[in-house]
Amino acid sequence: MPITAQSLIARLAAAPGPDAAAIKAATDRNAELTKPPGALGRLEELAIWYAGWRADPRPQITRPQALVFAGNHGVTAQGVSAFPPAVTALMVANFSAGGAAINQLCALAGADLSVHAITLDQPTADFTQGPAMSEAAFDAALSTGWDAVDPAADLLINGEMGIGNTTAAAALAYALFGGDPAGWTGRGTGVDDAGLAAKTRAVATGLDANPRARTGAMQALRCVGGHELAAMAGAIAHARCLSIPVILDGFICTAAAAVLAQTVPGALDHTVAGHVSAEQAHPELLRRLGKSPLLSLDMRLGEGTGAALAIQILKGAVACHSGMASFAEAGISAG
Amino acid sequence: MPITAQSLIARLAAAPGPDAAAIKAATDRNAELTKPPGALGRLEELAIWYAGWRADPRPQITRPQALVFAGNHGVTAQGVSAFPPAVTALMVANFSAGGAAINQLCALAGADLSVHAITLDQPTADFTQGPAMSEAAFDAALSTGWDAVDPAADLLINGEMGIGNTTAAAALAYALFGGDPAGWTGRGTGVDDAGLAAKTRAVATGLDANPRARTGAMQALRCVGGHELAAMAGAIAHARCLSIPVILDGFICTAAAAVLAQTVPGALDHTVAGHVSAEQAHPELLRRLGKSPLLSLDMRLGEGTGAALAIQILKGAVACHSGMASFAEAGISAG
Repeated sequence: MPITAQSLIARLAAAPGPDAAAIKAATDRNAELTKPPGALGRLEELAIWYAGWRADPRPQITRPQALVFAGNHGVTAQGVSAFPPAVTALMVANFSAGGAAINQLCALAGADLSVHAITLDQPTADFTQGPAMSEAAFDAALSTGWDAVDPAADLLINGEMGIGNTTAAAALAYALFGGDPAGWTGRGTGVDDAGLAAKTRAVATGLDANPRARTGAMQALRCVGGHELAAMAGAIAHARCLSIPVILDGFICTAAAAVLAQTVPGALDHTVAGHVSAEQAHPELLRRLGKSPLLSLDMRLGEGTGAALAIQILKGAVACHSGMASFAEAGISAG
Repeated sequence: MPITAQSLIARLAAAPGPDAAAIKAATDRNAELTKPPGALGRLEELAIWYAGWRADPRPQITRPQALVFAGNHGVTAQGVSAFPPAVTALMVANFSAGGAAINQLCALAGADLSVHAITLDQPTADFTQGPAMSEAAFDAALSTGWDAVDPAADLLINGEMGIGNTTAAAALAYALFGGDPAGWTGRGTGVDDAGLAAKTRAVATGLDANPRARTGAMQALRCVGGHELAAMAGAIAHARCLSIPVILDGFICTAAAAVLAQTVPGALDHTVAGHVSAEQAHPELLRRLGKSPLLSLDMRLGEGTGAALAIQILKGAVACHSGMASFAEAGISAG
């Protein structure tokens, strides 16, 4: 049965937490490894977190999955992007041909990449005029994401492609957290000052045109989000139900994830922030979610590239945790 | 002929810079890749920097080398470490058995790891009483590092193991940059307040006991450094002469590298800072060298672990640069 907004929420609310015994055993193991206590810094907490979600005190990462969702946006009619909407489909073709950044980073990380273009010939409606998606289109996009998750994966990242989607993400963040529309709006792929002003107007207008967006986070996602944002939310929710840890990507991915956090408390406990992007509102969005990024390299490409690079950090953490000798094994006693 | 302090300086001063044509060609290529300009952030500058040093506008990283140097320190007599000196040799055995963090991270990065223990049964002299090394011992340690570099490597990282060596690195930084001894002294593997006070005293006393340390950076390295610090300096210098890019590790590696920067201007142009460690003076040391770290994960283990993890970032940068399609290849024109 395809997932719907309603059934997704119910399943997310019923999803199990991490395995307490594995967390305990991994914490004990970490204390005995051949290093001064705490000397691997964040790698130590990452490994224990991963062990908990995988219910394995000495886990390995062997099947990372990368999903890229693509969608088009009616709000591009408002002059919000430096690129024309046709670029979305061209970049999807580039993904399929192996020519994009995400292809190279997934190959390096050993991640299985698949690309899911969602009705590119039927963009979302311009959300400055009304809801971006009907309930049916929203459920279909959620399902696309939900169904794309491989239950055998042991790690998930989500990326996106969609000309106009930093505008949708900004409108979504504004709907979820309030504040000043300009504070949530950045330059995306690189709009000039006139483009930035148009984006900010669209973000403000979008919420005015969609009173339903104020009635709940999932409604906000439907009204001012986009197909690929809904799909990312669906995938992250399904990963939560399957106890598959997720590395979040940049601003757009984080905005989609924030919908889940506002819908079900703890819904993002299985996620870490892969990086903080150069998109201006990403640091604030991460702060609202209580997430500290693993990387800060001024990236702002999307596609899942920041998360794909961060796979290597998590792999390093898990490799140290599961591969190192204990002091007893190495015949060392601390002074 | 083995390297000496004098011949190292001469060869470093005569070393070639990066290839200007490769930098130009890589910069042109970067501008045509299928991404908005600048969207890969620091990955773009990293790839161009690497291309310049490898004299190849579309390079690959296939032979990273990791060197770990180990030494013992007479200054441990001053109660500066939480661990006894015997741990140095035990950890070297752990490296050889594959049980340490650096083993796991090198395996993940595909780096060829070798460990060079330098006369562990003959520690350096206690530098609070006089020079840590004779000229002969210093030259021998420089040579160990110099000779360890594989000319066929296309990337180098250096790590260290040596109970007491954060004290030596702090004394070295104090000798090179002046200021307050306490400002350069941190908790290393985790000394308590009494240990930290002893370290700070040793750092201050070391410079008083070694007036020669003020006569030049190389003399500072000989007087208050250590075998493994000298070896790291030798390896980084040789890599510069061979145009092999280097990723610096933490506080101790950076202190050793700083000697080269003070000896020959531009001597560290072939290096990037892999990470900023939790050792308190590392941020300031990087600032003095004008290096911005790739990672900030509160690591403070040494062994080369921060640099080993950062190999993945550089590999990602180079993979994107050399593997991505151009807009023309993908049939995309920017709007």
